Amino acid sequence: MNETIRKQLEHRTIREFKDHSIPHEIFEQLIEVARRTATHTGMQACSIIRVTDQEIKNQIAGVCNQEYVARAPELLIFIVDQYRNYQIAKEKNFTAESAKDINRFFASFTDACLMAQNVVTAAESEGLGTVYLGSIHNNTEKICEILKLPELTFPVLGLGIGYPAQDPQLKPRMDMRLRVFENAYVAFDNYLEEIRDYDEEMRTYYDLRDPGRTVDSFSAQVVSRFKHSNPKRQNMLDAIRKQGFQLTD
Amino acid sequence: MNETIRKQLEHRTIREFKDHSIPHEIFEQLIEVARRTATHTGMQACSIIRVTDQEIKNQIAGVCNQEYVARAPELLIFIVDQYRNYQIAKEKNFTAESAKDINRFFASFTDACLMAQNVVTAAESEGLGTVYLGSIHNNTEKICEILKLPELTFPVLGLGIGYPAQDPQLKPRMDMRLRVFENAYVAFDNYLEEIRDYDEEMRTYYDLRDPGRTVDSFSAQVVSRFKHSNPKRQNMLDAIRKQGFQLTD
Repeated sequence: MNETIRKQLEHRTIREFKDHSIPHEIFEQLIEVARRTATHTGMQACSIIRVTDQEIKNQIAGVCNQEYVARAPELLIFIVDQYRNYQIAKEKNFTAESAKDINRFFASFTDACLMAQNVVTAAESEGLGTVYLGSIHNNTEKICEILKLPELTFPVLGLGIGYPAQDPQLKPRMDMRLRVFENAYVAFDNYLEEIRDYDEEMRTYYDLRDPGRTVDSFSAQVVSRFKHSNPKRQNMLDAIRKQGFQLTD
Repeated sequence: MNETIRKQLEHRTIREFKDHSIPHEIFEQLIEVARRTATHTGMQACSIIRVTDQEIKNQIAGVCNQEYVARAPELLIFIVDQYRNYQIAKEKNFTAESAKDINRFFASFTDACLMAQNVVTAAESEGLGTVYLGSIHNNTEKICEILKLPELTFPVLGLGIGYPAQDPQLKPRMDMRLRVFENAYVAFDNYLEEIRDYDEEMRTYYDLRDPGRTVDSFSAQVVSRFKHSNPKRQNMLDAIRKQGFQLTD
């Protein structure tokens, strides 16, 4: 097994980081990796906001409702960005109404995710740890406001990066025979039976966020997650519409 | 610079592959990398359809309108999958209406993208080449039908993998000072001025899909892409709704 894959298989979320920042040279490499990431039709319609201002970090941590976010040495927000190309077209005397297409939005959203994961792999290859912050969507409109995101942009995913100050267990994952299917989707008759061992394995996992306590079985976590939808989590479609994208044909 | 990052910086899209397939052991490693990819709240709500049936490959190539898709030694379709967890909850006597939430859809969509990019990096680290297929969304509903995707699943991204039978130039990319901003989005006054060198650099690039001819400047490509929206590309929101997700609060 090569070193790249070996490191990928060791991925764990890191939420607490050492105090010191990332060397400039390494950060530049991460940005270059972002730059070289595959992008839909070569359009590069996604961008990154690097948050260095502590007050802004605090505000984002507030939206995420996770105080460790404010302590991340690097905090990047990956965004959909159709604004730049819209302006480029405008300077060439073409007003691109199609920049607002929801399909273009999805293409850019995809690009932003690919870029984020490429940066994560690069960071981990340098011994850095990372934490994805889907929780920026607790209040997407607030994030747009904090980062002064113009029309035709949209926050996709946050990412904290730094040198790990914790060493969590590898988190158990379900067997891929339940997640990889040949030629057509396969529905199982009895999932609880299929994940029995996995459910048991999950009970032996210690979550560093609640040390000393093992966690619920996977199936219990699924029910709990479905039951307790985050009430603060607004409908993302509203935020998408407010940023100028068209949700209808 | 470490080997992982060095390879990431060499990323190019590969559309033509050698005839032989991927060794089983390598494929298993790619799937294990997919398994270990970060996932929203640990829910693992995304899956992969591995297309091995030549007739199905042909059908997907038809949707993509790219005949090389049918020749890819490996063809993977990454999908949103809230179906599995919905069933798990149901078997535990909880009917999870919230599985249909559009915010959960986006979380799964993000997860599927992260998984795809992790597999791409792993594949490239083994000397394989890859091509992303956003073009499955030329007809998303048809892809759902071909792959027998049940409710609460949704195709996100296709990926062709194999040993490269071509050696394309590294594609020019714009300077990241136009794509990375500190603390707030930065709009430029004159993008054409900012990308003047890049526009010129792009004209020296040879696209293997049209050998012997250099390509348009980036700004010309932007206008052209905005002008010629693919008419076959249906509104993805319709397909999302048809797969059982709720687009309203």
